[in-house]
Amino acid sequence: MVSPAVRVAPSAANRALGLLRTVQYTHPPTCPCHSNPNHHHHHHPQTPSLASHVRRHFATPVDSSREKEYAFEMAASSIRFGPGATKEVGMDFKNMGAKRVCVVTDTTVGKLDAMKQAIEGLSREGIEFTVFDKVRVEPKDSSVKEAIAFAKPYNPDAFLAVGGGSVIDTAKMMNLYTVFPEADFLDFVNAPLGKGLPITKPLKPLVAVPTTAGTGSETTGTAIFDLVSKKAKTGVAHRNLKPTLGICDPLNTRTMPSAVHASSGLDVLCHSLESWTAIPYNERTPRPTNPINRPAYQGANPISDIFSLQALRSTVKYLPRAVKDPDDFEAQSNMLLAATLAGVGFGNAGVHLCHGMSYPISSQNPGYKHRGYDVEHTIIPHGVSVAVTAPAVFRFTGASNPDRHLAAAEAFGVDISNVKRESAGEVLGAAIAEFLIKLGDQPRGLKDLGFNASDIDGLIEGTIPQKRVLNLAPSLSEELEEEKNELRALFEQSLEY
Amino acid sequence: MVSPAVRVAPSAANRALGLLRTVQYTHPPTCPCHSNPNHHHHHHPQTPSLASHVRRHFATPVDSSREKEYAFEMAASSIRFGPGATKEVGMDFKNMGAKRVCVVTDTTVGKLDAMKQAIEGLSREGIEFTVFDKVRVEPKDSSVKEAIAFAKPYNPDAFLAVGGGSVIDTAKMMNLYTVFPEADFLDFVNAPLGKGLPITKPLKPLVAVPTTAGTGSETTGTAIFDLVSKKAKTGVAHRNLKPTLGICDPLNTRTMPSAVHASSGLDVLCHSLESWTAIPYNERTPRPTNPINRPAYQGANPISDIFSLQALRSTVKYLPRAVKDPDDFEAQSNMLLAATLAGVGFGNAGVHLCHGMSYPISSQNPGYKHRGYDVEHTIIPHGVSVAVTAPAVFRFTGASNPDRHLAAAEAFGVDISNVKRESAGEVLGAAIAEFLIKLGDQPRGLKDLGFNASDIDGLIEGTIPQKRVLNLAPSLSEELEEEKNELRALFEQSLEY
Repeated sequence: MVSPAVRVAPSAANRALGLLRTVQYTHPPTCPCHSNPNHHHHHHPQTPSLASHVRRHFATPVDSSREKEYAFEMAASSIRFGPGATKEVGMDFKNMGAKRVCVVTDTTVGKLDAMKQAIEGLSREGIEFTVFDKVRVEPKDSSVKEAIAFAKPYNPDAFLAVGGGSVIDTAKMMNLYTVFPEADFLDFVNAPLGKGLPITKPLKPLVAVPTTAGTGSETTGTAIFDLVSKKAKTGVAHRNLKPTLGICDPLNTRTMPSAVHASSGLDVLCHSLESWTAIPYNERTPRPTNPINRPAYQGANPISDIFSLQALRSTVKYLPRAVKDPDDFEAQSNMLLAATLAGVGFGNAGVHLCHGMSYPISSQNPGYKHRGYDVEHTIIPHGVSVAVTAPAVFRFTGASNPDRHLAAAEAFGVDISNVKRESAGEVLGAAIAEFLIKLGDQPRGLKDLGFNASDIDGLIEGTIPQKRVLNLAPSLSEELEEEKNELRALFEQSLEY
Repeated sequence: MVSPAVRVAPSAANRALGLLRTVQYTHPPTCPCHSNPNHHHHHHPQTPSLASHVRRHFATPVDSSREKEYAFEMAASSIRFGPGATKEVGMDFKNMGAKRVCVVTDTTVGKLDAMKQAIEGLSREGIEFTVFDKVRVEPKDSSVKEAIAFAKPYNPDAFLAVGGGSVIDTAKMMNLYTVFPEADFLDFVNAPLGKGLPITKPLKPLVAVPTTAGTGSETTGTAIFDLVSKKAKTGVAHRNLKPTLGICDPLNTRTMPSAVHASSGLDVLCHSLESWTAIPYNERTPRPTNPINRPAYQGANPISDIFSLQALRSTVKYLPRAVKDPDDFEAQSNMLLAATLAGVGFGNAGVHLCHGMSYPISSQNPGYKHRGYDVEHTIIPHGVSVAVTAPAVFRFTGASNPDRHLAAAEAFGVDISNVKRESAGEVLGAAIAEFLIKLGDQPRGLKDLGFNASDIDGLIEGTIPQKRVLNLAPSLSEELEEEKNELRALFEQSLEY
C-alpha cells in the first residue's frame, strides 16, 4: 500500500546503491593522522602496526577538541506503519505495563478520529489516562512550560503524543522535565542558548502517533520551540529524548488540510536535502571524549544516507500529488513513510542552513499568517520557513560536494548527464525553486513573508546561535565575520526568487 | 573509511531507489477486502467512507487467523560504527549506571585484542565484571544452559558480548533467562519445537561487540542454537531480545582467518537475498491480535528492503576482496557494515529457505570439518550450510517475484537487459553459483559436506519444523506433502552444482 505498481528497470538499483557509497567518506589526499587516525586505515590498510598505532593514539591523551570524529552512531525509535494501527496503542501501553498515561495533543487534533481511536484503545485496555490538549502549534518556551506544569503533578508512567511535530516535541519536553523535576528549564536546552547537558537517565516510555507527514519527530531525539527571550528557535536534542515507538497510521494524515500537507512535506524535503548534504561525520569536530556526548546531529554517514536519499525521492514524487488531491491515499501514505524515513536520516545526520536560518524567520515573523492554517496567531509554518531559503542555500553548498548535489538534482527529474560538476549547486537550486513554484501557494521569497532588506541583520543575529546545525553546514566559514557575510548573502538571495 | 572513492554517475540513484518502491507491495487485481482491508485503500483511495469502513472491520470480531497482516514494525539496536570504538564500551556501561557486568566470549576471542580493549574499557571506569569464555561455536542447548547457569548466580545488571554470532546469541539467552529465572528453557523457544511465548518484560542492557562480519546478531532479536534432542537448529526470536547497542569496530574483524571471513560473509549474502525475496509483510498470515505477537520476521517491507539491497550490493563487491587479502581493511570495514545493515534488513523481514534448510544441514553433519576452523569438533559453519542450497533455492523462488530476482542478479554484475522475466530465477541461481565458486574453498554441494541422497529424508524432517522461516518462503506450498516434495527437490538439486 505504500508503493506504486509502476515497473522500472532493475538495472538502476545497482548503480544507484553504488552511488550511496561513492559520493562520500573519501579521504583527503594528505593523511592528517594526528587529527584523524582513521584516515590512516584508508591510505595504508597494509600497515601492520595499524591497530597498535591507533591504540597508542587513543591511549595518549590528546586535545580532542582538535580531533575529528572517527565513529558514527545510528539510533531510531521503533516504527510501526499501517492503516488503522492507531488502535493498537492501548495494547502497547498494557504490554509495557503502563498504568497512568498522559495523553498530549492540541485542540484541533483533539477533535479528530486519530484521538478518538487512541482514546478508545486506552479505554478498551482499562488504562487510566489524562488528556492535555493545550499544545501550541509552533511551541514557545511559555507553552512548553505550561505543558510541563500540567504533567509534573499527574506524574504519569508513560506518555502518548497524538498530533504533529509541535505536539510530539512538547510531549518529549513534558517527559524530560517529569523525569528531571529539579532541573532548570535551560539545563538541557542546546548550547549556547542553554547549558546543553546530556540526558543521563532513560526517560519514561513515549508513544508518538503523528497526524502530519512532516517533522519525523516520532523517530528523533529532538524537540524544538521558540525561546522568546532570545528571539530564537532552539530546543533539546539527545538520543534519550526519542520516543519508544512511532505509530505511523496513514488514516491519520487524511484529515490534513492541503496547506498542511504542503508545508509539512516541505519540511521532509529539507530534512532529506540537508542531511544528505551535511558535512561527513568524520569531518566533524570535536571528537567526543565520552560517547554520551556524540551528537545525534553528527553529519552524513553511510546509514543516514540510505534514508535521506530514499526520502528525497519519495517526497519529489508524492508531495505534489498529496497536496493537489485530498483523496490520493497512496501519495499520502508514501509521504507519511517518507517523513519517517527522513526523520531517521536527519535524526542521525542533522540538518544545516535551511533549518538554522528558518528559526529566526519563524520567530521574527513580521505579521504573516499562512493560508489554510486554522490558528488565532500569525504563523509562518516551519516547513515554509525552511523551504524559503532552500534555492539559495543549495546553490551555495553545491561546491562542497558536487556529486551529492547532482544526485539530488536528478531526484527532482533534472537530466544531469551533461551538467558540469561546477554547476551542481546552480542546477539543484533551480530545481528546488521550480518544485516550490509548481507546488503552489508558497511564498516566492522572504519578501512575500513581509521581510525586507532592513530585517536581515536581525535574521543573521538569530541564526548565529544555531551552532548545532551551522556546524554541519558545508561551505560555511568558521570565521565569524565571514560567516555573517555568507549568511547575509543567503538571506539577500532569498528575499525573492 | 567505509566507502571507496570510485566515481559513479548519480543518474543511477534515482531509478534505483525508485525500484525499491517498485518491485513490491502491488496489490492483487481483485480486492479481497474481507481478507485484507488495507488493499481497499489502494484500489479505492477515493472511497469517502474508507476510514469508517476500516474501523468497522477492526471493530467487528473477525477470525484474525485468516486475515492478512496490514502493518509492519521496524526495530533495531542502536549501532555505533568506528575503528577503535570498542574502548568506549566502559563509558557506555558507566553512562547507563551498570555496576556489575557479565562479559561473554569464547576461548578464541578471549585472547584477541577486542577482548583486551573491552576489558581495559571496563577497568578504566572501575566497573565490576566477570568473564564467561566457554561459549561454544555453533551453540547447542547444552552449552546455552551451561552459560545460563553461570549467569544466574552472578546476577549481573548488564551483559557485554564480545565475539561472533555464537557469542552474541548465547549472551542474549543468558540475559533472557536471568530476567526470567523461573521460566522453562522451552518457554520462549520458537514454536512448534518450543512454546514460542512473547518476551513480556524488557531485558537487561546488552552491548554486543561483533568480531566477525556475519550474523548481524548485534542488531537482531534472534538467538539460534542446536536443540539436540529434536535434531534441529532453532532459537528464540523477539524484539525484546535485541541488544541495546552494537559496537561495530572494524579493528576487531582484522583478526578473522580468511575461512571465517568467507563463511560469515556468505551468511550476510543469504540474509540480504532471503529478506529481499521474502513474501511481502502484507501477504503474511495471521494478522496478530496484539502487537506484541507481530513477529520480527514479518516479511519484506519498505524499510527492510532499503537495508537488504544495500547489504547485497556491498557483499558482492567487498566479500571477495576481504577473503583474498587479509590486509584489505577497506573491504573488511565495508563487510562489517554490510553485515549490520543486512542484520537490520532480515531482522525486520526474516529469512526463508536457505536458512530453514541450513539448520538440519548443520545439526545432521555427517562428519565434516570446515578448513580453517580452529575447533575440536566437526563443523559446518553456519554461512556454509546456508549458502550451499542458495543456487537451487533462488532458481525455485524466481517466479514469485521476477523483478526482485532480476535486481538481485544484477547486483552480482549480470547484464539483465535482455533477460526474460521467466528466467529470473535461473539467472540468479547461476550468478550465485558462480560467485561461490570464484570465492573459493566452498563445497560444491551437499555431497562435498558428506551428505548423499539417502540423507535427504532426515534433512526434510529437520526443515519442516522451521515454520517461522518457511512461512516467509515465496513459492513454497502450504500443503505438507507438496511442501515436502518441493524441499526434496531443493535438497536433491543441492547435492552438487
